[in-house]
Formats: sequence, C-alpha cells, structure tokens
Amino acid sequence: MEHQLHLLGGRAHTELAQKIADELGVELSPVKLDNFADGEISCRIGESVRGDDVFVFQTHASNVNDAVMEQAIMIDAAKRASASSITAVCPYLGYARQDRKSNGREPISVRLVVDILSAAGADRIMSVDLHSGQTQGFFDGPFDHLIARPILVDYMTKNFSSKGLVIVSPDAGRVKVAERYGSDLGCDIAIVHKQRSKVKNNYVEAKYLIGNVKNKTCVVIDDMIDTAGTICAAADLLAEHGAKEVYGMTTHGLFSGPAIERIEKSAFKKIIVTDTLPQDKKKSKKIEVLTIAPLIASAISAVYTRDSVSQIFDGQNQF
Amino acid sequence: MEHQLHLLGGRAHTELAQKIADELGVELSPVKLDNFADGEISCRIGESVRGDDVFVFQTHASNVNDAVMEQAIMIDAAKRASASSITAVCPYLGYARQDRKSNGREPISVRLVVDILSAAGADRIMSVDLHSGQTQGFFDGPFDHLIARPILVDYMTKNFSSKGLVIVSPDAGRVKVAERYGSDLGCDIAIVHKQRSKVKNNYVEAKYLIGNVKNKTCVVIDDMIDTAGTICAAADLLAEHGAKEVYGMTTHGLFSGPAIERIEKSAFKKIIVTDTLPQDKKKSKKIEVLTIAPLIASAISAVYTRDSVSQIFDGQNQF
Amino acid sequence: MEHQLHLLGGRAHTELAQKIADELGVELSPVKLDNFADGEISCRIGESVRGDDVFVFQTHASNVNDAVMEQAIMIDAAKRASASSITAVCPYLGYARQDRKSNGREPISVRLVVDILSAAGADRIMSVDLHSGQTQGFFDGPFDHLIARPILVDYMTKNFSSKGLVIVSPDAGRVKVAERYGSDLGCDIAIVHKQRSKVKNNYVEAKYLIGNVKNKTCVVIDDMIDTAGTICAAADLLAEHGAKEVYGMTTHGLFSGPAIERIEKSAFKKIIVTDTLPQDKKKSKKIEVLTIAPLIASAISAVYTRDSVSQIFDGQNQF
Amino acid sequence: MEHQLHLLGGRAHTELAQKIADELGVELSPVKLDNFADGEISCRIGESVRGDDVFVFQTHASNVNDAVMEQAIMIDAAKRASASSITAVCPYLGYARQDRKSNGREPISVRLVVDILSAAGADRIMSVDLHSGQTQGFFDGPFDHLIARPILVDYMTKNFSSKGLVIVSPDAGRVKVAERYGSDLGCDIAIVHKQRSKVKNNYVEAKYLIGNVKNKTCVVIDDMIDTAGTICAAADLLAEHGAKEVYGMTTHGLFSGPAIERIEKSAFKKIIVTDTLPQDKKKSKKIEVLTIAPLIASAISAVYTRDSVSQIFDGQNQF
Amino acid sequence: MEHQLHLLGGRAHTELAQKIADELGVELSPVKLDNFADGEISCRIGESVRGDDVFVFQTHASNVNDAVMEQAIMIDAAKRASASSITAVCPYLGYARQDRKSNGREPISVRLVVDILSAAGADRIMSVDLHSGQTQGFFDGPFDHLIARPILVDYMTKNFSSKGLVIVSPDAGRVKVAERYGSDLGCDIAIVHKQRSKVKNNYVEAKYLIGNVKNKTCVVIDDMIDTAGTICAAADLLAEHGAKEVYGMTTHGLFSGPAIERIEKSAFKKIIVTDTLPQDKKKSKKIEVLTIAPLIASAISAVYTRDSVSQIFDGQNQF
Amino acid sequence: MEHQLHLLGGRAHTELAQKIADELGVELSPVKLDNFADGEISCRIGESVRGDDVFVFQTHASNVNDAVMEQAIMIDAAKRASASSITAVCPYLGYARQDRKSNGREPISVRLVVDILSAAGADRIMSVDLHSGQTQGFFDGPFDHLIARPILVDYMTKNFSSKGLVIVSPDAGRVKVAERYGSDLGCDIAIVHKQRSKVKNNYVEAKYLIGNVKNKTCVVIDDMIDTAGTICAAADLLAEHGAKEVYGMTTHGLFSGPAIERIEKSAFKKIIVTDTLPQDKKKSKKIEVLTIAPLIASAISAVYTRDSVSQIFDGQNQF
Repeated sequence: MEHQLHLLGGRAHTELAQKIADELGVELSPVKLDNFADGEISCRIGESVRGDDVFVFQTHASNVNDAVMEQAIMIDAAKRASASSITAVCPYLGYARQDRKSNGREPISVRLVVDILSAAGADRIMSVDLHSGQTQGFFDGPFDHLIARPILVDYMTKNFSSKGLVIVSPDAGRVKVAERYGSDLGCDIAIVHKQRSKVKNNYVEAKYLIGNVKNKTCVVIDDMIDTAGTICAAADLLAEHGAKEVYGMTTHGLFSGPAIERIEKSAFKKIIVTDTLPQDKKKSKKIEVLTIAPLIASAISAVYTRDSVSQIFDGQNQF
Repeated sequence: MEHQLHLLGGRAHTELAQKIADELGVELSPVKLDNFADGEISCRIGESVRGDDVFVFQTHASNVNDAVMEQAIMIDAAKRASASSITAVCPYLGYARQDRKSNGREPISVRLVVDILSAAGADRIMSVDLHSGQTQGFFDGPFDHLIARPILVDYMTKNFSSKGLVIVSPDAGRVKVAERYGSDLGCDIAIVHKQRSKVKNNYVEAKYLIGNVKNKTCVVIDDMIDTAGTICAAADLLAEHGAKEVYGMTTHGLFSGPAIERIEKSAFKKIIVTDTLPQDKKKSKKIEVLTIAPLIASAISAVYTRDSVSQIFDGQNQF
Repeated sequence: MEHQLHLLGGRAHTELAQKIADELGVELSPVKLDNFADGEISCRIGESVRGDDVFVFQTHASNVNDAVMEQAIMIDAAKRASASSITAVCPYLGYARQDRKSNGREPISVRLVVDILSAAGADRIMSVDLHSGQTQGFFDGPFDHLIARPILVDYMTKNFSSKGLVIVSPDAGRVKVAERYGSDLGCDIAIVHKQRSKVKNNYVEAKYLIGNVKNKTCVVIDDMIDTAGTICAAADLLAEHGAKEVYGMTTHGLFSGPAIERIEKSAFKKIIVTDTLPQDKKKSKKIEVLTIAPLIASAISAVYTRDSVSQIFDGQNQF
Repeated sequence: MEHQLHLLGGRAHTELAQKIADELGVELSPVKLDNFADGEISCRIGESVRGDDVFVFQTHASNVNDAVMEQAIMIDAAKRASASSITAVCPYLGYARQDRKSNGREPISVRLVVDILSAAGADRIMSVDLHSGQTQGFFDGPFDHLIARPILVDYMTKNFSSKGLVIVSPDAGRVKVAERYGSDLGCDIAIVHKQRSKVKNNYVEAKYLIGNVKNKTCVVIDDMIDTAGTICAAADLLAEHGAKEVYGMTTHGLFSGPAIERIEKSAFKKIIVTDTLPQDKKKSKKIEVLTIAPLIASAISAVYTRDSVSQIFDGQNQF
Repeated sequence: MEHQLHLLGGRAHTELAQKIADELGVELSPVKLDNFADGEISCRIGESVRGDDVFVFQTHASNVNDAVMEQAIMIDAAKRASASSITAVCPYLGYARQDRKSNGREPISVRLVVDILSAAGADRIMSVDLHSGQTQGFFDGPFDHLIARPILVDYMTKNFSSKGLVIVSPDAGRVKVAERYGSDLGCDIAIVHKQRSKVKNNYVEAKYLIGNVKNKTCVVIDDMIDTAGTICAAADLLAEHGAKEVYGMTTHGLFSGPAIERIEKSAFKKIIVTDTLPQDKKKSKKIEVLTIAPLIASAISAVYTRDSVSQIFDGQNQF
Repeated sequence: MEHQLHLLGGRAHTELAQKIADELGVELSPVKLDNFADGEISCRIGESVRGDDVFVFQTHASNVNDAVMEQAIMIDAAKRASASSITAVCPYLGYARQDRKSNGREPISVRLVVDILSAAGADRIMSVDLHSGQTQGFFDGPFDHLIARPILVDYMTKNFSSKGLVIVSPDAGRVKVAERYGSDLGCDIAIVHKQRSKVKNNYVEAKYLIGNVKNKTCVVIDDMIDTAGTICAAADLLAEHGAKEVYGMTTHGLFSGPAIERIEKSAFKKIIVTDTLPQDKKKSKKIEVLTIAPLIASAISAVYTRDSVSQIFDGQNQF
C-alpha cells in the first residue's frame, strides 16, 4: 500500500516535463492528450493512479487558456481515478500579474486560475517565483513557492567576478529582490527609477540611477520579461552611465510582442533566463537558457517523501 | 433600489449577443475585453452593476478554452463588482459530450466547465439543447434549459407540407428527439440504424431504415453536427430508399474538419441550423441559418422579471 | 499504522453483505442497527474504525428512503469515529432514473442521493450498472462504476451456444448496451422498436423488429426490470417472429407491481438477474439469480489495496 | 418583481398544511407527489416559483425517512425551479433526540437531517420546540425556532384556575421548561425525580416529588411524548401524593408503541397535545388536540414580510 | 514516509503543553510565537511538518479571543506547511456555554469558534468535558470528546471511603453527571434544587435538597466553576443539612470575578480541579489541582497510532 | 418589503461608528455587547434585522483579536437573525501586513481574518487603504476598497501651496502611492531609499534621496505608521537636505511602541492621520486627525442604494 509517484505532463512544455522526469529518475506517466475535431481537449491517463501521489505538470505558456484548461482536465481525470493526492505543478502561473483590481469592476484572474485548479481537484500547488507572494494566500491549502535565485546566483558565481559586479533593479518596485541577490553574492546593488518631474507646467520624464555602475558588470534582475520595454530602457541607461557590460536575468521569459527586437537593439550583452516557459533558442542569440528542472525535481521529491521544501532553499525561499 | 438588467457579451459570438440585446430592447453593457501581449485576457466592465441582474453571454465556440476562460473572467469581474445575481448564458455549452467516463481515468469535462462557471461566481446557467439532460444536474442551482425545437418546427411548418413529411433519427440513440418533433408536426418518423452483423466469421456493417420514406420529404434531426459523418451517411441512405428530398436540421452547427466537404457531397438539399454558434455563411450554400436570439431573449426576460421559463415552451422543454 | 478494512452492512440486503464479506475473507464489522419505537433508526458501530478504510454497504432496495437514510447514518457515524476513508457501496443506486428534469420544476433526485451520501461523509461511491453514466459526474470525487456484464456474459457462454444466439435490445434507447454484449459474445443483435404511425388522422402503435431471430435463442438485455412491461412486450414480439426461446437478462431486478405476473404470462422462458437487489426466489420460478458478490468484493479489494478497478474489467467498464 | 409566497405541503401531514394555508389566506401551491411502482417518490411543482419565497412544509412524522426525503426532494425541485428563497418548515424535526454522541461511534443524526435539508437547497429552517436548543447551531443560517408555550398557556388560562394549579416537570432534566410555564402562569412548579439509591449492596429505585401537589390541579409538561413511560409514571406519583387531577401537556405527540395503552391506564385525566404531528383522534379519548397552525402561519408571514419572528413571542422564544 | 507526531503549544497554557509532551515522551515542536508592536500575533513553526500529524494545543483561557486566534494562526501555518492532518487540542473550549440562542438575535458563539478552527484548517478537534455534548455536532468531522471523570473518580477512590460518600448535583440540570459518578463509585447521590415558590403574591426562593447527607462526605460535582455562586450556595446548604464535610470537584476551573472570595468564605473544605485551565496555586489554599495531562496524552497517542479513543474510557466517554 | 439599513457598531471605535451614523442620518442600531466574568463576549442585537441590509462596523484596533472576534460574533448574530445581507466594515483590517509567507511555515493571517468574517456570515467586506491590493482577492465575493487619498489631498490643497510642495515616499516600495498623490496635486515627488553598500568587506548603510527638496514643503506619505521608525528617519533626512518643513500623512495611525516618542523627537512638524483607528489626541500635539466618516458613510450609502462605489472616487480607487 505504498504511494507511488506519477508525473503527468501537459502539452505546453513537454521538454521540461521530460527533463524533470529524468532528474527524478522516473518515466513520465502515460497520458493521452489530444484535440477533437472541434478543438475540445480529450484526455486519458494510461495507467492506474489509485491511491498514489500525482503531480500534474503544466506551465501556463501561450495559449494560456488552453494550458490552464488542459491542466484542469488532467487533474479532474486524476481525481476521478482515485489519486491519493494531486499537486498542480505550474512553473509559470498564468494571469499572475492580475492579482488585484487596479480599477473598479476588474477581475482578479489569478485567483480564478487558482480556484479552477482547486475545483478540478488539486490538493496542492507548486510554482516558481510568483509575481506577488500574496498569490499563495489565494489557495486554501499548501502552496509550494520555489525560487530560481539559487540557479541564477550559481550562474553568476561561475561566470562573473563578484568584485566588479552590481545587481540592478529595473524600477523602484523590485528593489527587495535585487537586495536579496546582492546579499547572496556579496555585491552592491543599483536602482533605476523613472520619474515624471514638473518643469514649468510641463511634465518631463527623467531616469534616475542610484548606485555607481561605472566600469562595472551590471546584471538587471526581474521576475519576468514580457515585452521587455522597462528592462531594455534600464540597460541603455546603465550603458550611458559607463557600465562595462550589461546582462539581464529573469525567471520567466515570456518575450511577447516586440520583446526580441528590443533585446536585439538594446545594450544587453546577454539575457539569462530559465526554462519555466519554453524557449525557442533561435529567437535571439543573446538569450541563454538555464534549466529549472533540477529545482522542480527536488521539490517534487521532497513533497513525495514528505521532506521539507524550504530546506532546499535553506529557508530562504521568501520573496 | 430596482434591479437593472445588464447583458455582457464575450467575444466568441458578438453578433448573437447584439441580436439578443436588440430583441430585449437594451444596449449591450460596455465591457472592455482584450488580450495582453502574452495572450492573457484583460477585462473591465464599463458601468456599475452593483445590486443588479447580470447576464454574461458567451457561446463556447472554438477556441473553446478561450471562450470558457473569458466568460469565467467576466463573471469574476461581475461578482467582485457586487452584482446581485449572475447568469452564465451559454447557448452552446463546451465539452457537453464529455459528460461521463467512457473509459477508466477519463475526465468528466463538462462537469469541470460547470464547476468553473460556478467557482467564478455564476448563480445560474442557461443553455440550449444540452447534449444530455443530465448535465443540468452537474450544477447545484437553477439551470435553465432552452430548446430550439419551436424554432425548427416553425420553420418546417412554414416550408414543408406536413403531409409528405418524415422526421428521421440518424441513429438509434436519438429516437426520442425525433418522436417529439414528429408529435409536434403530426407526421411520421423514421430511424436509421447501423449494425454490424456476422456473416461467416466476418463482420459486415449493414444500415437499416425503419419507416417508409419513399417520395417523402425527409428531415434528419440531430442536436449537433460536428464532422457530419453520421448524418451524411443517413442522408445518402434515405436517398437510396427513394426519399423525394432530404434536409438536415440541427441546433448546434460545429461543422468541424471535413464537415462542409461531406455536406457538399451528400444527398442533403439543405441543412438548417441555428446560430448558437457563429455561422460563416460562405462555408456552404446548403447551410441556412435561423436565429436563436428571440428564444434566448425571452428566457433572459423571464429570468429578469421572475416569470416562468418553461412557460415559453408550454412546459415542453424536456429533452 | 496500517489501515484496516471494515465492511459495514445496512439492513436492506444482509445476505449480499455477508456474501461479499465471505468473498473478501473478512468478518462483517459489528454495527448495531435498530429502530426506536417511533421508527427512527439507531446506529452504533461496534469496533474502532479510527484511521481505517470503511466500506458502508447498502443497496437501495425498497423502502428506498429507509435504505438511503440508514446508509447516510452509518456513514455519519464512521466519519465521527475518525475513519480514514469512507466508501459508500450501493450496488443499486436509488432514484437512478431521476437523473434529469423531464419537465420543468422537477427534482434531480439521484443528484440529491449523491449529495446526501457526500454530506454524510462519503469520500467515494461504488455502484453497479448505473442507469446513466452521467450519474458519476454528480459526485465530486471518485465514483467506481462496476458492470455486471462479465457475470452475465459468463452465464451465457456456459449455458447457450453462441451460434444460434441473438442479443436483443428491448427499445431503441438501449442499443449500445446490446452491442457490447454482442461484441463480447461474438453474436448478432436485434432491436425492438415501438413506434406510433399515423394512419388517416389516427395513431397506430406498431412494433418493429430489426434483425433476424427465427429459430434463434434470444436474450433481451436491460439494465433494470421494474414493472416489466416493455421487456415482456419485447419477448412476446420475439416469439411472434419465430424465436426458438426467449430469455431476459438484467442487472437490477426491481420486479415492482405487476412485474411477476407479467413475467409469468410472458414468452420468457427464464429471467436471469443478479442479486444487487434482494431476490425472493419464491416470487417466480422463471427467475434465476446470479450473485454479484465476487465482483463487488474484487472492487473493494482493489480500492483497499490501491489497485486498479478498471483492470477488473480489462478497461471495459464503460457504459 | 414582487416576491410571491408559495406554501408547498408534503404528504406527511396534509391536514396541518391546509390549516396553515387557511390561516395565511393562501391556496396551497400545487405539487404533484406520488410514488413510482418501486416506491421512489416523484415530485413536480405545478406552478412557477421563479424568484419567489417558497415554504416547503413537512412534519417528520412516521415514516420519518420518507418524510425527510420527500421534503428534500421538494426543496431540490424548488431550487432548480429558481426559487428566490426556500424555507424548510418542519414543525416536528425528525431525529431531534439524536443530537449528540451518547456513546463512541454513534451518529449525530439530527445534524445529518439538517445537512440534508441544506444540501437540497434550504436557506432557512423553521421548527417548533426543538428537543435541544443547540440544534439551531447545526445549521449555518437562520433557524426560526417557534415555541408552543403561548398556545398551551392560553389553554390553561382558559380551562384551569391558576390558584390551584401546579406545573410539573416529569424529570430533573426538564425543570427549566416547567419554570417558564410557571412564570407565565404565575403558579408553583413541582418536580418528579427518579433516583436509584443503594440499600445494602442493592439498588432500589425511589421516586421523589419536590413541591406540594395535594389537592392541586397538576399539569405535567414535556416537549414530546414518545412511549409515554416517564410521564405516566409521574402522573401516577402525583396521584399518590394527593393531586386533585392530573393533566399532561406536550408539543409533539409521537405516541409510539405502548403509549396509548399506558395513557389509558394512567392517572391522567387528559393529555393536551398540539398537531405538529398528525393525531388520530380515535387513538384515545383522553387526548385533546390544539392546533399549531396559527403560530406557524404567523411565523411564515413574518418571514415573508421580513417582520420579526421573535416578536410573535414577545422575545420569549428561548428554550 | 512514516507520519511523525508534532505537538505545538500555544502560549495560553505552556505548562500543560509541556506536561503532555513529557507524558508522550516527545519534545514540544519549536514554534515561535510573539506579538508585534501593535499586538498582532506572529508565528513561525521551527521545523518541517510536511506530511505529518500535527496537534495544535491551546486551551481557551483568558484572554479567550487571543487564545482562539493564536490557535487558528498556528493551524493556518501548519496547513500551509503541508501537514498531513491537524488536530486542534482545546482542553477547555472557549464560548462553550454560548451553544444556543437563549434569546432572539443572539449568536451561537461556540459554533463560530468551531467554524474558525475548521476554516483555519483543523481536521479534528479534541476537547475535555464539553458543556453540552451537542457541541460535537457543530463540527463536520471527528471530534474527540474526552472526560475527566476517571481522574476525579480515581482521586475520590484514593481519598474518600465510598461508604460515607455522597455525590451532589448543584442544580437540577446536572443530575445525570452526578448519577454517572455515583454509579462509578457505587455511592448515593443528592440534588440541590433552587425554586421560586409563590407565597401570597410574592415569590420566595427556596432551596431543596433531595437525598440524605447527614454525617456524609459530600462531593459537589460540576463541569466548570466560573463565578462559583451556585456551587458555594449548594455547599452551604449541605452544611446546613449536617454534612460531615463538603468538597467540590470540577473539570474546568475558571474562577472568575468573585469566585475565589466566595470559595474562601464557603463551607467547602476543598475544591479539586483539573489543569485544563492554568491554575495559580496561590489563589486559594482550598484549591487542589490534578493534572489532565496523562488523559490528553493518551488520546493524542491513540489518534496518532489510530487506536480507539473511547477505549481509554472503556466506552464510557458519554456525557 | 423594503430593505432597511442597520449600522451595528463594535466597541473598538464607538466614536467613529457614531460619526458615520450621523453622516448617514441614521441611529446606530441597538446592540448589547458585554463581557462575561470570564472575558467571553456577549452580544444581542436589540431590534429586528430580518430581511434587511446590515453593516457591522468594527475597526481592528488593539486588542486586534478582541476586535476581530467581536465583529465575527455580531455577524453570526445578524446571520442567525435573518439579515438579508451583511457587510463587514473594517476601516483598518487587522493582520493586513501578514499577507504572504515571508518564510516557510508561516501563516497568512489576513487570509485567516477574511475567512473568519466569511465563516461568520459576511457577504461583503469594506475596508480603507489595504496594505496590499491583493488582499481583496482573499475574499470570494465583493470587497469594497475605499481610499483616503481624496481626504488627504483635500487637506493639502487647503493647507499647502502646491508650488513648493513635494510628496515623499519613505522607501522604494511605496513609490506608486506617492506618484498618485503627486499626480492629484500636480506636484513633484521624492523618494528616500536606504541601501547597504559594501566598503572593504564591511556593509555601510547609506540613505539616498531622489528629487530636490531644498526649501520645499515635504509631505511623507505612507499607508500606515506603526512604530514610526522608517518614516521618522525619512523626515530627518529631508531636513538634512534642506526641506523647509516636513509633514507626515498616513491613513492608519497605529502609533505602537516608541512611535510617539520618535515623532516628538523627529523633524516632523505635523503628522496628519485619519481616524480609521481611535486617536487619543493627547498622545502628541504633532498629530492632527481628519475623519474618515464621510467617506465610509458614502460607501455604505452606495452599497445600500446599489450605487457605484468606485464613482465616489471617480474610478480612481486603485491602490
């Protein structure tokens, strides 16, 4: 009557699912996913999961609605197939930025995504670098919040000398994240702040840079890069202030719309990104991809063996 | 402190939303729906719905997942904006055929769709000609089940003489529906049944036709036409048996994959379909579209004024 | 800290409960069920079930309301006694035919039965040959749907030659079930269809028979026999068409009202029925009872040991 | 858009339902209740209740399980028919005495009854003289608790002189109720207490009477009379102590098993009972029935017009 | 994958938490509880509880609201930290006497306390000598109800001769409890009853004593002592009736307001109380404290090892 | 059958409750709140609220746990007294800063507070200037989020010349709030940022000031002032940089621990605070209190009359 571990992968990011399975030393569970002629998703789990611990993996890559629905359908199938516990593993959680009403009569769509996973039958959610930590509170149960920082810090330790290194926050709202990186690496941080000032009844936008970046290797950190506007502007400012070289680092590389074009044109020498979302390497030669698979595999393993997840981060998985 | 009626339309079928609004003599409520650069849906309701009766209209046309999520997001926005009641109006309910496990470890996806609408905040669901009546029971609240039969019967009364008319069920499983049409029109019914018979250790598929169709006007009835395989085969069989002319009638015209091609090649003279799903008239000249708008408008009006919905059908909205 | 298995039997069908216990090689758990002077049910479980897997067995035989309430009361007692998991085992699920609104303002009573078991504390439901597969979707959790087909097919294999055998569906709505039996047995099927036709402004009921039954052994299959009207009419029609002998087979033998009298008078040579409901053998000599106990015992055992239930049916427990 | 009042009556006590309707000056709503051949209950509400306030009346008379299920089925029908609010009116609430575990592994059956009404769709429950006031807390919503005391006190005021009147509690556990009656009537109370005492290693049961009853008119009060053992023993003791005449008064007359025979043989001159349960007057000439209908009608009216219910009792509907 | 046991103690009664841990032979789990400058409680569990059985101990001592909130916060932390099961251990359950509406428009506060523990994430509640047994029914899950009687009976057996012993109920409402003690000890019981009688239009309060206490050792039993008014009046009455010595015994010693002063002045020789609430021994030399720790430790151990809890009481933990 | 408005005030801030009632032109509803001898809260609502809209006002001032429990108890009483709708009005929402896990095994206490209000029976929550907007998403229903900005902006418009005015964010995380004030007032903003820099293996804390404050009137804005450390440090830095005068402005004045002392010693000329929390004016002459009552009264009125709440803020109540 031992619980078995089953890892089911959705179609949004099969490559990462396979990497996690490899890390865990297990086979991906057979699950037949298809689309009917009218586009509806069909699903059949190909082996018994009765009484077992099921991890339903799906990153909410574009098309985000397809990804969320497919994951919910797999969870429903696992629930009705008598799984003992179901963990929704969402490296990138869709709608994460719609976490509050910025205007009246708006939805809180990420709460809805969490409610959908919960209604389908998820007992637990696992995600990486949530846009806001409060999202954990949208779920009435355990929510394992992983952080990519150790992977990114490790990359920097191996590739850059901490001596001339400066971690840069691309706007005033993300300073705390930069500070944690700075602390891990034992290096300074800098902040870019864009502000509208009034000059004789007109508003003029000015960019401020706090911290000294002259002849430094600058790494601009953000949790996600979507259209890349803010972060490329920051990179250019750093270059203007004499930075020796400018790198970008992010967990979630959405790279929507003009992102790739902007990055190509920007002062960035390289953007380092994890594979929480599928990364087509042909997009831009400036983009380098690190895999998040070992991290997620460790967390799945800890959940399965009832070990501490925060131990993986030495208790540092705050956000 | 009177409740106002608000009709919000999703983007899956704006034409039908507008027609329903016209029938009701109201303006569609302003709701700003868009997609962010990464594909996520944004939504803002443009007027106060506090304390009011909100009808969130969306047919689950392809892409069905986008349609369901967009409707759920609108419902969430209406809930958080203090609507007094929220009705999810889904002329075609997505995943309606996935209403039971046909194999072990499959999902019951239409229950999931119902649960998503419920989790988002719907107090009531309204749909037309559900694939199975049991789907009403998936919702723990009022589910207004409308039927298109009066519209289709009315069309036949106006266009065909009941004398030479025969209603045909395209397979053994849909006989009851054909019987109700036959009873309304006072005409005979016929049934097509496909059966495998054993002839010396081999299976041979034979098609049976119950009922006399010689020189009759045949109308094959089904709740939906997806890839049109079964219904076109039935039409051809009827022609072989000497039918004068063969029509098809359906509530939900999905017309997926090879459907249009099959219809063009078939013995059908015409397919009459309602607009529960958007119908591009250029698809096939054989397809004629009747609008469901007055029916849905009547039901919305009855819900809003707390009148009987089953009265609209003289209590005949069984399925 | 091993989970123990406890099988609790209600009073609706103690004989079957005992048979299942014998099959499992366990004792029925002591549970004191009685009625107070005013008719209320009293219940006390006679041994600790803390942390264990409890199977609360009750078939919803007449009086169905007593049977449902007694099962719910036992489940409540097990829940408050800290059972680890509770499975409601209902070989015949009461109100199974009231699974949709056939008219406005009707209840969906089987959803209510499912909700009662759920409110009482059932984590899982197990039943045999549901009237409609959609009923599984009324429960928000695992619902093990067993099928009696292997038992009935086995009987036929042993008692009839497949050569001259024809499986008969007693009306157009149950054809798929007949097809599955036909496929298992490698034999033909036939269909009885009753239809009203119009002859000069009058309706005349005609019975159609699809398929050749002359000199064949006919077995009419239905999921349940209640008042036996339809099935006896089918039997007589088969006899008229020259069937050599006519048998009936059903999972659930309700045999209400005029059923026994009708069967006695009918062309049936024998009716084979399982014991999902208690069968008083004196009712009619034509009725032969097969026990469902080994099937249910296998499913309970699979649930308890976290094995696959659909494996019992080689994945063929679709409906 | 005014809410209408609908009063639906179950079959457990049609006479009281009619009386309440008469008091309210309304017609009972048409609801078709029947039993199928196999005993299952069928139900159809015969008029639209959409948007209205529905009161589903059923007293939980024997067979209590039929009564509870029938009420739940009616509530389910009203919920699915879009009632605005549903009140379960249960003058006598079944299983009311099973309100706690008196032993390990027992159910709390009245909580289950409340959960069943709630799961079916009741928004509010109304009952009379609950066996324990805590039962209100089993429902997560408004529970209107009516008391029959005004009716019984009124009877006494009209029929007895308060001068020589003594209210008697039949055991130590019901003293508070007797005190409230005594306070309303301005008269003394007495208490019967049965106690086992030890006399040389043997237990002897002794009955104590606290209070002076000599030449007094004694009225023994209890919330319900089931088998009538305790109350008849009390009556006889009062007679032994010189009571002039002894009456019994109770809200709920179950009169199960030996009750009528005991009452006939007892010292009681008369038992006054309300009609919360159907009372067959032929049972015993000693039993006099007062109707609870005006009280329930007042409470329904107050709920419907959003008036205070506790006002009906001048705030004295504590228990 | 064995479940570990974790015992977390709130700050309301750290001494008892430690004693229970000692009895169990475990360390109290590290949990950092503090108050921020503004009074809000902070909490961090200091070790992994993932997949384990967590017992969150807190007695609802004054300030009761702080105690309840602190326990709920600890439960929330354990839930989000992936505990497998969470038991709220509340030796004294706050608001236990507010278990019904004694007037209109009052809360049922103990139901609220139970709902708060449930909303926070408790799977099970454990408490000692509930004020009313019905409180168990407020929770929709297992509620382990422990009783202190064995501890108190054991004390009496060791300290008093059963020969001259009388158990006294301090008012008519608590007689059944006294009877259980009497039965365990094989001794007589007595009852104090306070009654208002009418003497010429005036009410005079009279105290009755049922049973013979002359030269007996009297032990007055109640589930809790709050302001000690009733119990001290009972003690004085017993002294007046010639009792040799009078003791008080109670499970929950609240000793609020004038309690200590009243006890000091009363006829009580000693009050024996358990430590379900913290007892400052300096309060009164008359108060002797027995520890409840072994009892709670046994129950926790039984829950953890899935043993019978009612076995601890030989099935006698009724109330 | 009109709904009436009832405003019930808890004891945490009776002065503000009265002011809101005065603004609304209603009497505070009578509600009897008290503490029993043992500290438990007693509550009775003194008038019928059946079918009415009830607003239960309580700010979560210290003792925050008492305040939350008292509000929940009032809500429970209103729910059981058949209120039609219940709005929990919490100008300051307790535990608002504990909105995410900053470490493993921590609670999300503000989610718990929201769940408690919801479990008690609140249909809607209203609060002012939430610490994070995401808190709205913790409630599965409408959450009216009011903002004090109009009141504070109005004060500034009346008391300061916009010419020499600078709005200051006391740290990098609150810049967006400052920007909204700057935009409303048409003036510049400045930012204080505290940063640790590395100087030869040692960390030195440096304070940065972005923006020019020389000879300007500076107003430092924060949503709440607790111990006042950060904001006083900011004030001193502004003074050092030549600010003409420095003011502080905040919605929620907690002023815990050393706050008053720090303010007295600081460069602040004045702190302007609203009365969402009770402000004892004797605390410090530097503190000036503006009332939030008209704002809350407007919102309550809008909810009651089903008007738009966001209209009160011209749709600017984003945060």
